[in-house]
Amino acid sequence: MREETLKEHVLFEGRIIRVRCDEVLLPDGTTSTREVVDHPGGACVLCVHGGKVVLVKQFRYAYREELYEIPAGKLERGEDPMLAAKRELEEETGLVADRLVHLFTMYPTPGYCNEKIYIYRADGVSAGKKHLDEGEFLDVAEIPLEEAYAMIGDGRIRDAKTVIALQQYRIDRA
Amino acid sequence: MREETLKEHVLFEGRIIRVRCDEVLLPDGTTSTREVVDHPGGACVLCVHGGKVVLVKQFRYAYREELYEIPAGKLERGEDPMLAAKRELEEETGLVADRLVHLFTMYPTPGYCNEKIYIYRADGVSAGKKHLDEGEFLDVAEIPLEEAYAMIGDGRIRDAKTVIALQQYRIDRA
Repeated sequence: MREETLKEHVLFEGRIIRVRCDEVLLPDGTTSTREVVDHPGGACVLCVHGGKVVLVKQFRYAYREELYEIPAGKLERGEDPMLAAKRELEEETGLVADRLVHLFTMYPTPGYCNEKIYIYRADGVSAGKKHLDEGEFLDVAEIPLEEAYAMIGDGRIRDAKTVIALQQYRIDRA
Repeated sequence: MREETLKEHVLFEGRIIRVRCDEVLLPDGTTSTREVVDHPGGACVLCVHGGKVVLVKQFRYAYREELYEIPAGKLERGEDPMLAAKRELEEETGLVADRLVHLFTMYPTPGYCNEKIYIYRADGVSAGKKHLDEGEFLDVAEIPLEEAYAMIGDGRIRDAKTVIALQQYRIDRA
């Protein structure tokens, strides 16, 4: 069932993504092309304290919409995803976690993209100091869990990593 | 909080994706660039019958791995996502649904991509005839629900749309 690479063609090297259109050999012996978005991976963190989940609301240029998401960021090359998740939580919300527990690693859209998103849960959270990246603008919202579940139900929360983390939390607590 | 487009730069027009690197005006008045993957959207369908969920197992070139996913495909330009989901179910598995119910619309990776994935549930399923797209190779697997939930738990199922659909089904049935 494998598809073998005949030739890689890199079309674009950006700050976040690299784009390829490769020539491949299919299982039936014919050839085709495959479009691929290379991504270094992302890390994110579900942080629940006092019955509320910590979300960030930010404008996402690709959709031209403001979205609610759990704190997240892309990995630097070779970075431990757990350390990246801890860093993003602190940078975006000012919260510091004693310990992160790995919940899940998900593949957002495997038809053309190889990003892996590592999802953690933050335990033992206390207040620290916020310091956003350059060009990053966001609001922090603490939302009661039942309200967050309702926001999934009516589509106000629609980011995949955020939905998976909250659904898993709800299943684990049931 | 909006970011305004100053200039769109299309870098690649593929069969599945289009890639842009736009110049944008940030909320603080400075300028920056935003990398965007344009995608026409996808549709997928959770099909449970006789206590088993219908999954397809296929090689995903971007990850160079075989993945379990619910039947899915990309939208043709202007296509109704519900019709696309019905078509993909039939093409990939040979199953015909009387009716599809919209469960959720999710955003897989909003940092750089504008794909929307429409998730449906198939009701009233009966056998039809499989007919795969050219260059498409996959196996159909019918997996007991409890086993599928365990496969999310241990990471054997890791595709975002599949996880969200199965988690939602589990929550709705609880």
